[in-house]
Amino acid sequence: MRAAILHAPGDLRVETVPDPVIEQPTDAVVRVVAAGICGTDLRGLAGHPGPVRGPRCGHEFVGVVEDTGSDVRGLRVGDLVVSPFQFSDGACAACTRGVPSSCRSGGMFGVDANGGQAEAVRVPFADATLVQVAADPGDDRLPGILALADVMSTGTHALASAALPAGATVAVVGDGAVGLCSVLAARRAGAERIFLFGRHENRLEVGKSFGATDFVTARGDEAHAALLDATGGVGADLVVDAVGEQSALDTAMAVCADGGSVALVGGPHGGVDMMTCFLRNITVTGGLAPARTYLPGLVDDVLSGRIDPSPVFDHVVTLDDIALGYEAMAARTATKVLVRP
Amino acid sequence: MRAAILHAPGDLRVETVPDPVIEQPTDAVVRVVAAGICGTDLRGLAGHPGPVRGPRCGHEFVGVVEDTGSDVRGLRVGDLVVSPFQFSDGACAACTRGVPSSCRSGGMFGVDANGGQAEAVRVPFADATLVQVAADPGDDRLPGILALADVMSTGTHALASAALPAGATVAVVGDGAVGLCSVLAARRAGAERIFLFGRHENRLEVGKSFGATDFVTARGDEAHAALLDATGGVGADLVVDAVGEQSALDTAMAVCADGGSVALVGGPHGGVDMMTCFLRNITVTGGLAPARTYLPGLVDDVLSGRIDPSPVFDHVVTLDDIALGYEAMAARTATKVLVRP
Repeated sequence: MRAAILHAPGDLRVETVPDPVIEQPTDAVVRVVAAGICGTDLRGLAGHPGPVRGPRCGHEFVGVVEDTGSDVRGLRVGDLVVSPFQFSDGACAACTRGVPSSCRSGGMFGVDANGGQAEAVRVPFADATLVQVAADPGDDRLPGILALADVMSTGTHALASAALPAGATVAVVGDGAVGLCSVLAARRAGAERIFLFGRHENRLEVGKSFGATDFVTARGDEAHAALLDATGGVGADLVVDAVGEQSALDTAMAVCADGGSVALVGGPHGGVDMMTCFLRNITVTGGLAPARTYLPGLVDDVLSGRIDPSPVFDHVVTLDDIALGYEAMAARTATKVLVRP
Repeated sequence: MRAAILHAPGDLRVETVPDPVIEQPTDAVVRVVAAGICGTDLRGLAGHPGPVRGPRCGHEFVGVVEDTGSDVRGLRVGDLVVSPFQFSDGACAACTRGVPSSCRSGGMFGVDANGGQAEAVRVPFADATLVQVAADPGDDRLPGILALADVMSTGTHALASAALPAGATVAVVGDGAVGLCSVLAARRAGAERIFLFGRHENRLEVGKSFGATDFVTARGDEAHAALLDATGGVGADLVVDAVGEQSALDTAMAVCADGGSVALVGGPHGGVDMMTCFLRNITVTGGLAPARTYLPGLVDDVLSGRIDPSPVFDHVVTLDDIALGYEAMAARTATKVLVRP
């Protein structure tokens, strides 16, 4: 079969590789119907520190079960499934506590197991990892389902990390797919006012359709002042950092209300001053999304039409052209790319 | 009147100073019945960075209203009152949001207003700051009430910072008065298992009477292993850092369960790695306690006998001998000192 292989920083190729097979009785093999390219994939391609190392890339995919190991009970050949970006055993203390992202037997597709930017993928702990989708592989809701694998689960996690007061103000720093999904999750969580910080007009348009009420296109002190002025100096009850760089962390702290929360879902490549958090009673929360925990509910939400995160995908490529998809995201001409094997 | 005055690091004297008087119509003057010495007072005396600078020291006091300004409505001369360690206006956005510790018109006794280690003290925003106590000045529950001014409010804040799951495990790092009060608050919050990290036998005894179920007297890796072994490798749902030094922050992170919370109530003089928090889904919460928010409920709790934090006081001095009290706390021969003017 064909799969995207990261040979070295900057060297991504689509190659013919051995087909995945059942290796453990709890495995399933899934034929990929659609895969996503994630911002962290770009970090991996660029050789930046991060979780994405390959060699077989990709941690977002939807597909059809093609084969199951002898211990798989809840899935049948032909089932349409979505996978969270990590696999997990579903049985350990971390999984039982709702934190499958910390499962010690688990790991990330594209790093600890082969990735999903391929024609097919082996899924460890298939019963505990995959979630069935009651739809056909050709269903037009599939992009919305694919968005759940990582970015919409991550946005959901950001909002689940803090209890919102009535009439809450939420600020989302970053207009990438995670930021946009955080806006959608904020609306779903009942936020009254949702600020989106970003500079890409097309993304802010998506953010508006997702429920953002206010837009901050400035940066730094000017951006901070914009939100503070608009909230009578109070700040946001919850700030979602969907970027992770130091400048975004600084913005998150600057626009958070005293007594509020900052949810880190962008992977923080920077620091937060603890004494400032202490004196201002700011809670730092969020983290690597335990996507599997949210996935069943989110699949229901998409199939029932309660949410539609599919507009985060604004570009489609074939698997053989996946490098063009990476380039489009790196150049910011695409927000997020859907890959058709 | 007599008051404790901090002239310079290491130079604390009790001197005759002008009596406090009503300066603003929202002021009250309170004759002090009992005052406390706090761990942060010791930092101020030693010249360490921190909020306590004097010159009139002390931010924990119980007393009787002696005079009120023309705008004070809820208090009468003769009322027994307890003060939170900070005054606040009760009307601003921060106060309305339940974070009076961030009140911009407010401040800390002993820093932004004269302190309570004195025969009397002027209290700004008296209606919003002071809480009435339905008891006589000679009531033997007064030490328990005095403990609410800071340390028990702080322990309560630590526990209020995170929602505990059923059968929760809480770890408290530090066996000072704040740590001990955090144990008491954890028991009151329904924690099933409460680990207390400390090395002072008499304090651990108090912790036991407050509800601690497990005691860790080791330090560093050995201490971390003790808790992890005792919890099947999982760690604590909530860790309260009641110390603030880097070693305590490191312990808090090491013994926190993935998906759990670390409540910083010791005043963090150190850092926490954000990427570790992210990958392990650890929430960093807590902060400078908004004591006024908890005080009315806690006064009820003490008067009704539901809690009795008074055992944190194991030493009593007169105001003229207050330096001996500071010395006893610095030498760890006293956990916490009550001062009688």
